[in-house]
Amino acid sequence: MALSTVSATQLIDSYQWRYAVKRFDPSKQIDAVTWAAIEKSLVLTPSSFGLQPWKFLVVRSPEVKAKLPAISWNQTQPGDCSHMVVFAARKTVDEAYVDAFIAQAAEKRGVTAEALVGYRNVIVGFLKNTTGRHMVWSSNQAYIALGQLLASAAVLGVDACPMEGIVALEYDKLLGLEGSDYATVVGCALGYRHPEDHYASMAKVRFDATEVIQYL
Amino acid sequence: MALSTVSATQLIDSYQWRYAVKRFDPSKQIDAVTWAAIEKSLVLTPSSFGLQPWKFLVVRSPEVKAKLPAISWNQTQPGDCSHMVVFAARKTVDEAYVDAFIAQAAEKRGVTAEALVGYRNVIVGFLKNTTGRHMVWSSNQAYIALGQLLASAAVLGVDACPMEGIVALEYDKLLGLEGSDYATVVGCALGYRHPEDHYASMAKVRFDATEVIQYL
Repeated sequence: MALSTVSATQLIDSYQWRYAVKRFDPSKQIDAVTWAAIEKSLVLTPSSFGLQPWKFLVVRSPEVKAKLPAISWNQTQPGDCSHMVVFAARKTVDEAYVDAFIAQAAEKRGVTAEALVGYRNVIVGFLKNTTGRHMVWSSNQAYIALGQLLASAAVLGVDACPMEGIVALEYDKLLGLEGSDYATVVGCALGYRHPEDHYASMAKVRFDATEVIQYL
Repeated sequence: MALSTVSATQLIDSYQWRYAVKRFDPSKQIDAVTWAAIEKSLVLTPSSFGLQPWKFLVVRSPEVKAKLPAISWNQTQPGDCSHMVVFAARKTVDEAYVDAFIAQAAEKRGVTAEALVGYRNVIVGFLKNTTGRHMVWSSNQAYIALGQLLASAAVLGVDACPMEGIVALEYDKLLGLEGSDYATVVGCALGYRHPEDHYASMAKVRFDATEVIQYL
């Protein structure tokens, strides 16, 4: 397959265009085709061993969105955006979860689960060696999804605001995660910037490449 | 500025095209223009408060690359790829670091550091409340960079292999991070797939959208 690629200039223009939106335009919604691509970006995110130890909760209901600012340090983005994505990570990754994953991998690849037993055992060994640290590890994977989501939104021309400033335990309660195998890690509001959001025109602040990148 | 956006189809085609490369073609190198875009993707990665608590080490030297498989569970990708990116996160984020960041933000935005004192104090308050957990937090930020890098590589048509299976302490030693404020978190090999890497043609394994995405 000949892949149609994006030019270096176009990619960087997209990253220069994006910023952490402070004020969304509540009248503008992400259309269905664009949202389908963003959803697919989440589903296709790479993860360690391919284990996908996450759930993505997408808040669209005006009633639920209206409750979010109060549990987000009064930030307005979760209420005014089009789609509020909440990244939840799996607290403990056990053998049953690995077996479910291996069963699906076997099905998708047209082999038996027995043929993947070596791969399964490597994963189970890793998880045993990291007992008690699964939530840190699965949270890391959720942050890969956040990074890919931010890049996807930028190249699609969709605005975003990544949000660590949410009260995770309150999100868990509101979104029905309490008592489940997953817990809220971070959020990302998606939609379109309000024309009066003056943060849009502020200079981007980044260390120079020479300060953060070292070649060996 | 009218942003030139990528179509939903093109973005998803790129994500379907990518896979975790097992065998790179050591004869193929990323050209300078494409690499410049990837470097910029790293530099422009969003982070919490904009603090960028990371360093990106890029291994190009054949001598250094040759030493990497032995400290990567004998995986060949770090040795055969074009550019091996190592993500290092800041172990402790102190007030001096925040002040350096605020000084730069003030300069880029043409205001005084005093004008940003409210912002500075919010950040310092957050860091005090998370004492002892800075490395987890800064590692999360590094994973955003990994996610954005993987997306960037995909749309540029560059192959990648994200690599948690590296011996971080050995990477720290080899790359000169030992005793510094930064520690190795994760790696990502970049370059071009070997024509005989049979993983390229294997079906992608992902849970269905209905299993990982919940709408509210």
